[in-house]
Amino acid sequence: MELLKNRIIKDGTEIGSEIVKVDSFLNHQLDIGLFKALAKEFYCRFGHLGINKILTIEASGIAVATITSMYFDLAPVVFAKKTLPNTMNDEYYTADIKSFTKGTVSTAVVAKKFLSADDKVLIVDDFLAHGQAAKGLASMVEEAGGTVCGIATVIEKEFQGGGKMLREMGYNVSSLAIIEKIEDGQIYFKN
Amino acid sequence: MELLKNRIIKDGTEIGSEIVKVDSFLNHQLDIGLFKALAKEFYCRFGHLGINKILTIEASGIAVATITSMYFDLAPVVFAKKTLPNTMNDEYYTADIKSFTKGTVSTAVVAKKFLSADDKVLIVDDFLAHGQAAKGLASMVEEAGGTVCGIATVIEKEFQGGGKMLREMGYNVSSLAIIEKIEDGQIYFKN
Repeated sequence: MELLKNRIIKDGTEIGSEIVKVDSFLNHQLDIGLFKALAKEFYCRFGHLGINKILTIEASGIAVATITSMYFDLAPVVFAKKTLPNTMNDEYYTADIKSFTKGTVSTAVVAKKFLSADDKVLIVDDFLAHGQAAKGLASMVEEAGGTVCGIATVIEKEFQGGGKMLREMGYNVSSLAIIEKIEDGQIYFKN
Repeated sequence: MELLKNRIIKDGTEIGSEIVKVDSFLNHQLDIGLFKALAKEFYCRFGHLGINKILTIEASGIAVATITSMYFDLAPVVFAKKTLPNTMNDEYYTADIKSFTKGTVSTAVVAKKFLSADDKVLIVDDFLAHGQAAKGLASMVEEAGGTVCGIATVIEKEFQGGGKMLREMGYNVSSLAIIEKIEDGQIYFKN
């Protein structure tokens, strides 16, 4: 998606060879006009699949998922939590998710009542790096007997292998900008 | 706001006399159609104030803030983070925020470059309880020289005193449903 690539080039900052910082429009300050364009593109790619639920994980996936819902007939958004709130006295699905960026393992939690066998789910996130979050979310959908119709991410860092892993597992993964590598302060996109 | 009160009565669950659980539509699974109605009402209450930025805090404030932006000419949304990501090598504003629900103190962080003296800010959150989050966010706006035009919350638990405190501090606080008390499994709203 050219609009997004151009924005990453214009406003993104690369940190070393692993991290592209897009906090001015994607995950700290949010450009909601851009988000609308991203969500519309997700609809073009996944809109024919009968999706009836959007699943993401806190925190920065929530905004993308929320706007995406507006293009998917207001399908309910469910976001996995990374801590168990003390108001959550339900049964829940869990998945351990390793964050390579933060160097931590967290447990993602979704109350069982919000995933079911009738769900045709689009998993949405801002970044796809090592693929741990998407893999964990997909496992919860499947544990509930639901269907993962697609994994929609804004920026995929191909060199970290998560997209390859998820595609080899059979998932329908689509990312709006795919970064092949970051080298000498330059971001190289896949065509 | 009747629509919201009715939804709380229909789908909310009270836990003891302090907590109302609204995870089926507001802060775990999200009813985006309802969110649109909430955001439209925020516009009715705050739309005349020249607001050019929406500020919230992760995680459950993000969805409300995102939809609210759509009714405020796509004003940028900034969400305070509760942990310092390792990609955040900027200067930042911080505020300590005590969560009475979780029994923890966390530090909210906003990069300085995303708040300025030109900002006319609407602070948005899902809940207003003891008011610590809103107070912390407001302090960061003011440290940047910006103006807090309003504090917009979906559900205020009046009996926990945060709204009173913030109004006495001079803030323009408006909540779409105000709960006076929870008693014997019944939720009592303020008129």
